[in-house]
Amino acid sequence: MNPINVTVGKKEFFTGIGKIPYEGRESDQPLAFKYYDEGRRVGGKTMKEHLRYAVAYWHSFCGTGSDPFGPGTQALPWLRGKTPLESAKWKLDAAFEFMSKLGVPFYCFHDTDLSPEGATLGEYEKNLQTMVRLAKAKQKESGIQLLWGTANCFSNPKYMNGAATNPDLLITAHAAVQVKAAIDATVELGGANYVFWGGREGYQYLWNTNMKRELDHLGRFLRMARDYGRRAGFKGSFLIEPKPCEPSKHQYDFDSATVIGFLKEHGLARDFKLNIEANHATLAGHSFAHELTVASMNGMLGSIDANRGDEFNGWDTDQFPTNLYDVTEAMLVVLGNGGLGAGGLNFDAKVRRNSTDVEDLFLAHIGGMDTFARGLLCAHAMLEESALPGMRRARYQSWDSEAGRRFESGKMDLLALRGLALKNHVPSRTSGKQEKYENLFNQFLR
Amino acid sequence: MNPINVTVGKKEFFTGIGKIPYEGRESDQPLAFKYYDEGRRVGGKTMKEHLRYAVAYWHSFCGTGSDPFGPGTQALPWLRGKTPLESAKWKLDAAFEFMSKLGVPFYCFHDTDLSPEGATLGEYEKNLQTMVRLAKAKQKESGIQLLWGTANCFSNPKYMNGAATNPDLLITAHAAVQVKAAIDATVELGGANYVFWGGREGYQYLWNTNMKRELDHLGRFLRMARDYGRRAGFKGSFLIEPKPCEPSKHQYDFDSATVIGFLKEHGLARDFKLNIEANHATLAGHSFAHELTVASMNGMLGSIDANRGDEFNGWDTDQFPTNLYDVTEAMLVVLGNGGLGAGGLNFDAKVRRNSTDVEDLFLAHIGGMDTFARGLLCAHAMLEESALPGMRRARYQSWDSEAGRRFESGKMDLLALRGLALKNHVPSRTSGKQEKYENLFNQFLR
Amino acid sequence: MNPINVTVGKKEFFTGIGKIPYEGRESDQPLAFKYYDEGRRVGGKTMKEHLRYAVAYWHSFCGTGSDPFGPGTQALPWLRGKTPLESAKWKLDAAFEFMSKLGVPFYCFHDTDLSPEGATLGEYEKNLQTMVRLAKAKQKESGIQLLWGTANCFSNPKYMNGAATNPDLLITAHAAVQVKAAIDATVELGGANYVFWGGREGYQYLWNTNMKRELDHLGRFLRMARDYGRRAGFKGSFLIEPKPCEPSKHQYDFDSATVIGFLKEHGLARDFKLNIEANHATLAGHSFAHELTVASMNGMLGSIDANRGDEFNGWDTDQFPTNLYDVTEAMLVVLGNGGLGAGGLNFDAKVRRNSTDVEDLFLAHIGGMDTFARGLLCAHAMLEESALPGMRRARYQSWDSEAGRRFESGKMDLLALRGLALKNHVPSRTSGKQEKYENLFNQFLR
Amino acid sequence: MNPINVTVGKKEFFTGIGKIPYEGRESDQPLAFKYYDEGRRVGGKTMKEHLRYAVAYWHSFCGTGSDPFGPGTQALPWLRGKTPLESAKWKLDAAFEFMSKLGVPFYCFHDTDLSPEGATLGEYEKNLQTMVRLAKAKQKESGIQLLWGTANCFSNPKYMNGAATNPDLLITAHAAVQVKAAIDATVELGGANYVFWGGREGYQYLWNTNMKRELDHLGRFLRMARDYGRRAGFKGSFLIEPKPCEPSKHQYDFDSATVIGFLKEHGLARDFKLNIEANHATLAGHSFAHELTVASMNGMLGSIDANRGDEFNGWDTDQFPTNLYDVTEAMLVVLGNGGLGAGGLNFDAKVRRNSTDVEDLFLAHIGGMDTFARGLLCAHAMLEESALPGMRRARYQSWDSEAGRRFESGKMDLLALRGLALKNHVPSRTSGKQEKYENLFNQFLR
Repeated sequence: MNPINVTVGKKEFFTGIGKIPYEGRESDQPLAFKYYDEGRRVGGKTMKEHLRYAVAYWHSFCGTGSDPFGPGTQALPWLRGKTPLESAKWKLDAAFEFMSKLGVPFYCFHDTDLSPEGATLGEYEKNLQTMVRLAKAKQKESGIQLLWGTANCFSNPKYMNGAATNPDLLITAHAAVQVKAAIDATVELGGANYVFWGGREGYQYLWNTNMKRELDHLGRFLRMARDYGRRAGFKGSFLIEPKPCEPSKHQYDFDSATVIGFLKEHGLARDFKLNIEANHATLAGHSFAHELTVASMNGMLGSIDANRGDEFNGWDTDQFPTNLYDVTEAMLVVLGNGGLGAGGLNFDAKVRRNSTDVEDLFLAHIGGMDTFARGLLCAHAMLEESALPGMRRARYQSWDSEAGRRFESGKMDLLALRGLALKNHVPSRTSGKQEKYENLFNQFLR
Repeated sequence: MNPINVTVGKKEFFTGIGKIPYEGRESDQPLAFKYYDEGRRVGGKTMKEHLRYAVAYWHSFCGTGSDPFGPGTQALPWLRGKTPLESAKWKLDAAFEFMSKLGVPFYCFHDTDLSPEGATLGEYEKNLQTMVRLAKAKQKESGIQLLWGTANCFSNPKYMNGAATNPDLLITAHAAVQVKAAIDATVELGGANYVFWGGREGYQYLWNTNMKRELDHLGRFLRMARDYGRRAGFKGSFLIEPKPCEPSKHQYDFDSATVIGFLKEHGLARDFKLNIEANHATLAGHSFAHELTVASMNGMLGSIDANRGDEFNGWDTDQFPTNLYDVTEAMLVVLGNGGLGAGGLNFDAKVRRNSTDVEDLFLAHIGGMDTFARGLLCAHAMLEESALPGMRRARYQSWDSEAGRRFESGKMDLLALRGLALKNHVPSRTSGKQEKYENLFNQFLR
Repeated sequence: MNPINVTVGKKEFFTGIGKIPYEGRESDQPLAFKYYDEGRRVGGKTMKEHLRYAVAYWHSFCGTGSDPFGPGTQALPWLRGKTPLESAKWKLDAAFEFMSKLGVPFYCFHDTDLSPEGATLGEYEKNLQTMVRLAKAKQKESGIQLLWGTANCFSNPKYMNGAATNPDLLITAHAAVQVKAAIDATVELGGANYVFWGGREGYQYLWNTNMKRELDHLGRFLRMARDYGRRAGFKGSFLIEPKPCEPSKHQYDFDSATVIGFLKEHGLARDFKLNIEANHATLAGHSFAHELTVASMNGMLGSIDANRGDEFNGWDTDQFPTNLYDVTEAMLVVLGNGGLGAGGLNFDAKVRRNSTDVEDLFLAHIGGMDTFARGLLCAHAMLEESALPGMRRARYQSWDSEAGRRFESGKMDLLALRGLALKNHVPSRTSGKQEKYENLFNQFLR
Repeated sequence: MNPINVTVGKKEFFTGIGKIPYEGRESDQPLAFKYYDEGRRVGGKTMKEHLRYAVAYWHSFCGTGSDPFGPGTQALPWLRGKTPLESAKWKLDAAFEFMSKLGVPFYCFHDTDLSPEGATLGEYEKNLQTMVRLAKAKQKESGIQLLWGTANCFSNPKYMNGAATNPDLLITAHAAVQVKAAIDATVELGGANYVFWGGREGYQYLWNTNMKRELDHLGRFLRMARDYGRRAGFKGSFLIEPKPCEPSKHQYDFDSATVIGFLKEHGLARDFKLNIEANHATLAGHSFAHELTVASMNGMLGSIDANRGDEFNGWDTDQFPTNLYDVTEAMLVVLGNGGLGAGGLNFDAKVRRNSTDVEDLFLAHIGGMDTFARGLLCAHAMLEESALPGMRRARYQSWDSEAGRRFESGKMDLLALRGLALKNHVPSRTSGKQEKYENLFNQFLR
């Protein structure tokens, strides 16, 4: 990865804040890293290589803190241009200034974060091309790279009944315009991945919905997009991001297991992986680590949207990750997966609506980056120094026997398996030792 | 299906209650059907043929109302034998008396409901064979048939870490003894299906668990069972019953989508279908109708465990189905599926712990049967008389166009699809009309 | 209550739709009532008197279908004025046209629904006075009355940390401006009640919050408002509307029991009652009927926000009430309460985001009104014709004994109570008969 | 508090395990404390004085791991006597051996944990007196004290419809027998508190229930119990333990706010405090810290049941506390409360069903004790060394002004408050700084 150069545009937006330094655990400075020391080596890779942080363009530079009960609260100084396109340029300046001062190597965007929609489809395409050209220059100047691009096919009112799963073919065609353009943009900017988040692909009401037909359309649409992308020279992974509900009552990409089944069913498993978001996992009734494990054990862990929800709130709160347990568990899976490959940790998170100071955006990202860096250290130590991995391995040792191998390789039938029991009438009870594991886990949480 | 003959054993257990009659909607008699008129024809089939009711042996004849906070409350008069086997025989008498008085055509059991475990595996097998012989005679006498059999591989302490997914191969072998015996019993009794409910196949704690290895074992075990069953002459469907949690923190058979993906992955999709339980659906964050739809649209709706949960309680309350909305929705899916085939509606439900009168078991079943019969009438009327099916069909008409057909058949690429939009810049917004559907639904709820 | 006259302004907004007629259960006309026959007498009162329907100004005339994932979809033809005040006038015309065509006797509003905020507090007050004058004329013309008024002290960004519970006293003072003005408006318009919904009174984060101090401020503020209102001539009830969360992580008015405790603690119990919303009840883990019962048994059932949530979505979906079970249960409590007094049934509900036809707003209200009218009939029949009330009364008959009376009146001590048991060693087990009640309930659901 | 002496009975049950030593953070010994150093002073008190740990007799010595899907798995060597009373004596020996080796200063029990119910009420009373005599000797020998006693009025089938809220007065009388006996036992053993957990005080079904009458009975019963206790010489606090549901669908003691309102309503607030359980808090939709804060700010934080639930399981999992965030937050409230007074931290937690090794019970308690000790250190440091308390105080500084004081003391009316705003038209937006607090919190989590 490139070194990151602080990149300020014509106007400095985050005055008084420079490059965020690493100061170590004992520092009292809020605007400094306490754990994230990008060059520090952890088991053969630097922290920067392990963690591959990315900033989410939409939350950090477009969101103003609105919620269903009130408009935005955050005065973003870059929302100042006289035309939408001019505004988009100031926003781009602000974004690269922020990201480069923070020192993250990656960013992610939707087409309409970067560039205004315009009055016509033609204007939309032209705007996006313009902004991509400018973003490319910013990438070069700063050293920051594109982790992934995507198309926003859910905000425009035309998508109110879905995009690829819309009952109206013409709306699906509109989505094709955006997906084509966003793939082109991703290719042009050297993006490592291209993401599909379900948006409004799902249903509000089961009885006006033909679920099977909608899912078939979705599968077909994704194959079209894949084929186009490959022809356009895209070499990276396509990613699906599971979410169980919101905005739809039911989202089709419910969770990892559902999406993996769908991808295999529709012949997409070779080109697609998963982008796992913590808050989406919990809304689906799973832990973050569970969803990561399901993806990883299927060879489909593509990337991570690093955030968190609130255990007592049933919607996507998109908070910055600060829980060291969740993050250490995530890093246990990531390390077990051999790393994130071309994926990364994208902070799909927003500051709270009432966090209205300019520095709050820095504090939030610093908190998230420090938490994951600390989690990396804890997880690495657990795997390298603790009894945990060995205990887990030993728990399955009976399956490493001759009989176990025959079972696992399909060389044993039910009667032979029954025969083993008839020879061993008195089964043993082997403690699962959960409390011992939990104590060890806490010992390495430090 | 056979006519049902009231079948009382040496001792009558439900004295004072005879064959439950159909008396119609205006009857005030608690021990009579108000909607379930078994011979009434609804769209070409009788109610009895549509609904294929079954009684669950475990809840109705083994359960005594215990819960985690206290022992059983219900004095079952058939728990009276001097030996476990003698008790099992009294229980069999009581069961067939109850079921035949109720007039249900089917029942379902676990091996250990019907027959005592015994002190050794050999004794277990012998007991089961004895009881199967007696049950076969009872079936013949009463006309009641076996909807499905299964093996209880979760109650015995040896299964505390799972059965097919146990870290100890020998425990898995013990499960093979039971599954083999329960398949044999099902074949001998002419069972239409054989069910696997996940029991303790899942995890309590992620970090002492090798999920991938456990799932591979499960897949392998199910193939062994299927192969054995086919060799033993079993012609029916194997069924998996999804459930997301409880007793395990996470159960592997989380929901329909998860199970269908698993079955396809492991080459089991031709022999296995799903047994959908209402309360398991809701624990997984889905409506009952959603889970039924997912199963049906994949051609995998095998059978139904008819019960309900409590919206505000996060565990499996296994209440009798009484909600006419849920049941009408279920019957909409069932009718759309062309019926339940060789499956049925099994009341996997228990009377409340404080429902201690003998008649309560009758009242509970009558309520469930009447609710589903009424739901059948409502659903049938919605499909035959209301505007609902036509409105849903019309919603997708753009896909029936030439362009739609090309899309659906894979003859259109992303650029061609984009071309459609460029020709149609101004997309329409078509109301989803949810409120109109909801009003219609209520109109036919009667 | 007055007869309602259709009241169209300078421009008719709902062309092609006239006064909604009652056509009865067999009608196929979507724009007609099938159950709500306003003059029909049910047990001594007309349906109109029982149900006291109100339309919510904010959802029906201000909401455009925006959600956190996209802007509004619904083109409201009355959003057409050149200035905010002119727009507010068109909206007022539209509102009274809609409400009078629907035939509801009441409406409810927030200050800022009716009237634009303006650039200064003075302009805000002046705007509101202007609009109140116009609304008063509309009320007179149409016969529609004000069920309740309230102040929106949560949407404006200044309230991002709360209003009466804001850490900044000056923001609380701003709330006082609005509450004073909204009380004045309510008095001027003859409003029967004045409502406080918690808005952002709660916390996002426990550790920057002094909960005790914030709650003391809230109690003090409500006493100030009450005292002002009484001096201003307000004779009706003040109402608190419980909600457990959203927008705040935790809302202080969590549920009925919490609010009742708070009101008593702060000396507000004589002037305040509760406004119970169905969807807020379910978010708090309670059934709608539970919350109504708690309010009623404390003599504090003031009014109802009639809507519903989605069992599987953890946010306030504010759907129109269509579930006959929930609504019949609600009406059982209301009838047991002797009616709603000066309260009513306010449809705090919005059409779905994708319900974009003008008629959808009518269909939604018609569905809600028909459901509650049908629920009234069911509940009335259960109370008058069924065995239910008698069964419940008989269940407690032991408490009507001499010993029971001594217990209830405080004339028995623990030793005397123990003495009863020592004389009656063998306790009986009396079935709760839940299944019998449930069957009866379904019998009267018709 | 007394020093604890290892107290082994006639037979040693936990052979091979001696007094658990403190070895410090770097120790790899599973059977040693890493944080809990009972004599270590933290801000003026020893850890032992701060934490006041107690063992729960029911989970640790009576529970065998049964769940609704299978019987117990854990072979408790002390379940060996020939009669129930003899068994109870062996259990007492085992309990004091375990507790004294662990070094906890307190324990808690239900009457029926300690002593067998017997065939008659007379036998029940006699058994309990016998066991109390023996326990008293054990307390003296070991130095272990009774934190609280209680009566189990929920397990016996007679309580299936509740105890104090039973529709049958005679069952309530049976409860009086037990409560009287359990109070006597608590007084005799010098118990510091007497607890009421709601058991089955609640409802399964709203429509067979007279909630108001049941709650009045509950209030009356608690006053009887209080009066008896005071006459019997009990000087400590009575405690109510909130829980929202389970076993009942709805438990009357839903949460802290509900219980506090109830206690005040029934004149019980001077004698009663709250016993807050972590897992009950989360089932009610609250964080543990929230419930503790509500109790504390009302002067009613009596004691704590220290355990945890599973975020994804909707029942009381009663796991040992291991989450350092939850525990640190709890200790922030406890320190802010000036400590627990005569209350303590009772491990109302059980080892997992598959934790079948004898050492697992030690490991579980050691984990819980170490986590709370570490949480105490973190919370103490946050309060003493971090910017957190000062930031929170400063947030409310506007209320410390002259105007604020007038508001708080009731000397300002709504018009005067409004006047403040009219003088200050432009409100400021002050960031809540949540992210800054969260980063600080993590910095002190160590």
